[in-house]
Amino acid sequence: MSGRVSLVGAGPGDPELLTLKAVRRLSEAQFVLYDALVSPEALAYAPRARRLFVGKRAGCAAMPQDEINRLLIRAARRGDRVVRLKGGDPFVFGRGGEEVLALAEAGIPCEVIPGVTSAVAAPLLAGIPVTHRGVSSAFVVVSGHSAAAYRPVLMSLEPHSATIVVMMGIAHRVEIAGGLLVAGWSPTTPCAIVAAASRDEERVWRGTLAELTAAEPDTDSADAATMVIGDVVDVLSVARSLQQQDVNSRSSRPYVCSR
Amino acid sequence: MSGRVSLVGAGPGDPELLTLKAVRRLSEAQFVLYDALVSPEALAYAPRARRLFVGKRAGCAAMPQDEINRLLIRAARRGDRVVRLKGGDPFVFGRGGEEVLALAEAGIPCEVIPGVTSAVAAPLLAGIPVTHRGVSSAFVVVSGHSAAAYRPVLMSLEPHSATIVVMMGIAHRVEIAGGLLVAGWSPTTPCAIVAAASRDEERVWRGTLAELTAAEPDTDSADAATMVIGDVVDVLSVARSLQQQDVNSRSSRPYVCSR
Repeated sequence: MSGRVSLVGAGPGDPELLTLKAVRRLSEAQFVLYDALVSPEALAYAPRARRLFVGKRAGCAAMPQDEINRLLIRAARRGDRVVRLKGGDPFVFGRGGEEVLALAEAGIPCEVIPGVTSAVAAPLLAGIPVTHRGVSSAFVVVSGHSAAAYRPVLMSLEPHSATIVVMMGIAHRVEIAGGLLVAGWSPTTPCAIVAAASRDEERVWRGTLAELTAAEPDTDSADAATMVIGDVVDVLSVARSLQQQDVNSRSSRPYVCSR
Repeated sequence: MSGRVSLVGAGPGDPELLTLKAVRRLSEAQFVLYDALVSPEALAYAPRARRLFVGKRAGCAAMPQDEINRLLIRAARRGDRVVRLKGGDPFVFGRGGEEVLALAEAGIPCEVIPGVTSAVAAPLLAGIPVTHRGVSSAFVVVSGHSAAAYRPVLMSLEPHSATIVVMMGIAHRVEIAGGLLVAGWSPTTPCAIVAAASRDEERVWRGTLAELTAAEPDTDSADAATMVIGDVVDVLSVARSLQQQDVNSRSSRPYVCSR
């Protein structure tokens, strides 16, 4: 029997946000290669599989993409059912497309299973709808990793015409906020930084665009934090103040500002 | 015991793309209000619940939002565990924020559970990664429902600086494509329309921006179709031609162009 590879989105971290299909593929897997944001509970759905961590650890780089591709191909050729488990969605800054191409060139059967993306779920879990009638009917998701990637988008976009979601951009937050102010965004635009969304250590910082440039948010600079900029950040603040946290669970608390 | 409401994202349609948490809430539910894109298989996870359809049917409008809010509040006050089941993610054009506000004002405990959004999953299932290293490191999601919503974003955005995803915009596709051409996008920009993503009747149309303005895509004008514009549309075409469809399942076939 020939092997195959499933590229699977694991969602933002809470194992309850795995899809049924992700769990099914994990339960059938013989080999799982996983990233930094994948939880131990998610891996527990693959009890029979060998598991290999290929993500970034503190101070260490991730395994090079070529090496990951080679491991996927080698395991599939051996006949393994392989799951490549990725935080969030495989095609939202997940390099899933590169793995699809490498596998196709090697003739390995492969499928991609979508996941709950942190681009939407991290704001949601902080009580922020990326769209809201009368406030925003568009959102932009950019990688904040390099200025060459986000500048053309953020600098050209009509100010306040869309919610902005910046992933992996905490280290560039001063540059990003400064650029948006120059482009014409109001200094009072509400902003939030959501770190470790859906996980026990989740923290949310809230402030304005001006504060984002001036202040050091009370959150570590974890690459994986999600930044949200736009009026939607405050749109449910009435609800947050009206209502206490009633449902105590990691992946569903829209009203908690911070912990 | 007092009732509560869970606003739950059901994903794009395939019940296997429900999250574990969505299934758990459905299994506990006493009352489920659901939208047009929710599958019968998803509702089957709530065997004990009364079920009420509140979405659009062919030729008929959806139930007014105020009426949905009233039903949610009344059921929760009666003590029910209520699930408000929405296609995709509750906060991506799902009016989830409005329901959160109405429930908070009524003092009803409420939580929001993120789902797999069609904005990302519909392209993925057509073999299109919304981001891909060296091709696109940003994507824009707009509602194509009204020009007032999408024009400021699409007309200002630096051409080719981001993948564009238009939801509910098939009826406006000629206007949208024409506007992008005027704004400086190349007429050869690859485009796709993904209808009924992850469901049995899924269909994908592929072409260029110029063809989008000139041609009638071979797909019905279902409001729910997702339009994708940008070089990422073709980035995995090599993989699609190298590899036949090996995994026959609704929610994971990146290489199928059309059916």
